[in-house]
Amino acid sequence: MRELRKITVIGLGLLGGSSSLAILRAFPKVKVVGYSHRASTRQKAKDLAVATEVVDDIKSSVTESDLVILATPIRTFEDIFIEIGPALSKGCIVTDVGSTKVLVHRWAAKRLGKGVHYVGSHPIAGSGERGIEFSRDDLFCGAACILTTTKTTDHESEDVLSNFWSELGCVVETMTPQLHDRIFSDISHIPHVVAAALINASDDQTLKFAGKGFIDTSRIASGPANIWTDVLMTNTKNIDSGIDRVIGELLKLKKAVAGEDERQICNLLDKARNKRAALIKHKFEKKELL
Amino acid sequence: MRELRKITVIGLGLLGGSSSLAILRAFPKVKVVGYSHRASTRQKAKDLAVATEVVDDIKSSVTESDLVILATPIRTFEDIFIEIGPALSKGCIVTDVGSTKVLVHRWAAKRLGKGVHYVGSHPIAGSGERGIEFSRDDLFCGAACILTTTKTTDHESEDVLSNFWSELGCVVETMTPQLHDRIFSDISHIPHVVAAALINASDDQTLKFAGKGFIDTSRIASGPANIWTDVLMTNTKNIDSGIDRVIGELLKLKKAVAGEDERQICNLLDKARNKRAALIKHKFEKKELL
Repeated sequence: MRELRKITVIGLGLLGGSSSLAILRAFPKVKVVGYSHRASTRQKAKDLAVATEVVDDIKSSVTESDLVILATPIRTFEDIFIEIGPALSKGCIVTDVGSTKVLVHRWAAKRLGKGVHYVGSHPIAGSGERGIEFSRDDLFCGAACILTTTKTTDHESEDVLSNFWSELGCVVETMTPQLHDRIFSDISHIPHVVAAALINASDDQTLKFAGKGFIDTSRIASGPANIWTDVLMTNTKNIDSGIDRVIGELLKLKKAVAGEDERQICNLLDKARNKRAALIKHKFEKKELL
Repeated sequence: MRELRKITVIGLGLLGGSSSLAILRAFPKVKVVGYSHRASTRQKAKDLAVATEVVDDIKSSVTESDLVILATPIRTFEDIFIEIGPALSKGCIVTDVGSTKVLVHRWAAKRLGKGVHYVGSHPIAGSGERGIEFSRDDLFCGAACILTTTKTTDHESEDVLSNFWSELGCVVETMTPQLHDRIFSDISHIPHVVAAALINASDDQTLKFAGKGFIDTSRIASGPANIWTDVLMTNTKNIDSGIDRVIGELLKLKKAVAGEDERQICNLLDKARNKRAALIKHKFEKKELL
């Protein structure tokens, strides 16, 4: 398998900084070059020794890199591909840590040269915190990491990247970008949208009485609005159909309640309860819940 | 203030059993009579010494009681009022621990005699568990308890009941049944409906990938379907308008996403984030979150 000697991390927030630190830990011989467009972030990266080297020029950051990881907002990727494309070495693997994948594959196919191999990565890791100062070299330990590949994906690059994330502590699984975006719409983006809608539908005076139930149900809506806007804007079709499906289920319940159809209300609530019980059972069996 | 010498608890599930145990702890001189229509529950109540006395006749259970507490499903209350009404002493206070209140006040006004004083109670307590075997005498310690009163409520009875719940460890607040049902629709019943709709809108294969976000967002949908059916069936108008408001917010987000209206998406997500931040801040300041 191809050896990784130099890796570039573009974008030094929590995920970029943690990727960089994790590489330094897992691959002590690898040179990690970090790039951020912000001078203050570059200074913090140097102070925290997050990378072997921190540079202020994105093009030179990728020169002779074996692997380039994009850890900036998803909608910056196409411009970054255009900018770094000419500077990438033949055989270089390009990936990213973004939460949606279909558009990124499209941009990569359009903007990266033939000798460069794009494979998508989505490590399911994070914390309540943001920013390089919260970076940690164990952020990916035990996390799932989805690789996304298409018919044209280079198999060796996929293997190298799979091994790379495994070494960082991830449990790697591969799927198409289409399936990825549909699944994450369902389990992450739509719940975020629903939590936001639930909060926005309540008035501030009422919310003062909220207890643990409401607080749990709405928790994910506290994620940063700009990052989530980026996610929703790059997964529009799945969000659209996902919202329609939730509205459909809400209308079923509304109709049952308005008609005082006790059996149907109970059926719908019981269905949800059983589906969730099956989910929790599955998670326990796979030891994904502790 | 009137002295409580005998208290009857009708229904011996988690809330009834815990009320009874809490009374024995807080009012050692009071006689607590427990009633359940199930022989097996009565036997458990005796084995666990949940009440001073456990009886199998609902009418005689309330004879000479100063306070009768209904802890059965909400929609059994009207029939119970009819059944126990003739056996209640003049001056007896009747309350319940149900999650909706408008209908209960209406049934009480219609079915209880003039010398009997109904005041609603909603202690916000519970646990993941159900059934008398999980009863505990500290279930209400630190819990909020909403009393519901109307223009015709007897003030002395309200004071006695407020003092009663305080002695059991509750922080008592009083409001109208209408306001109560609107608030709890918003912060409890609608989140339950939304969580159920979210789960029912996802397919089982997709759910296998669900992580902490989805699991938190959907947690409350694991509540018992029959109890929640009871709640929704007794708060239909608020549920109806609450679902409409959530759908309205979902449609705003759907429109913004379909139109790739970045600013509007970000505004809506940010609004939710800020409202939730204000809620958490309020809860911390009131020391309701630890």
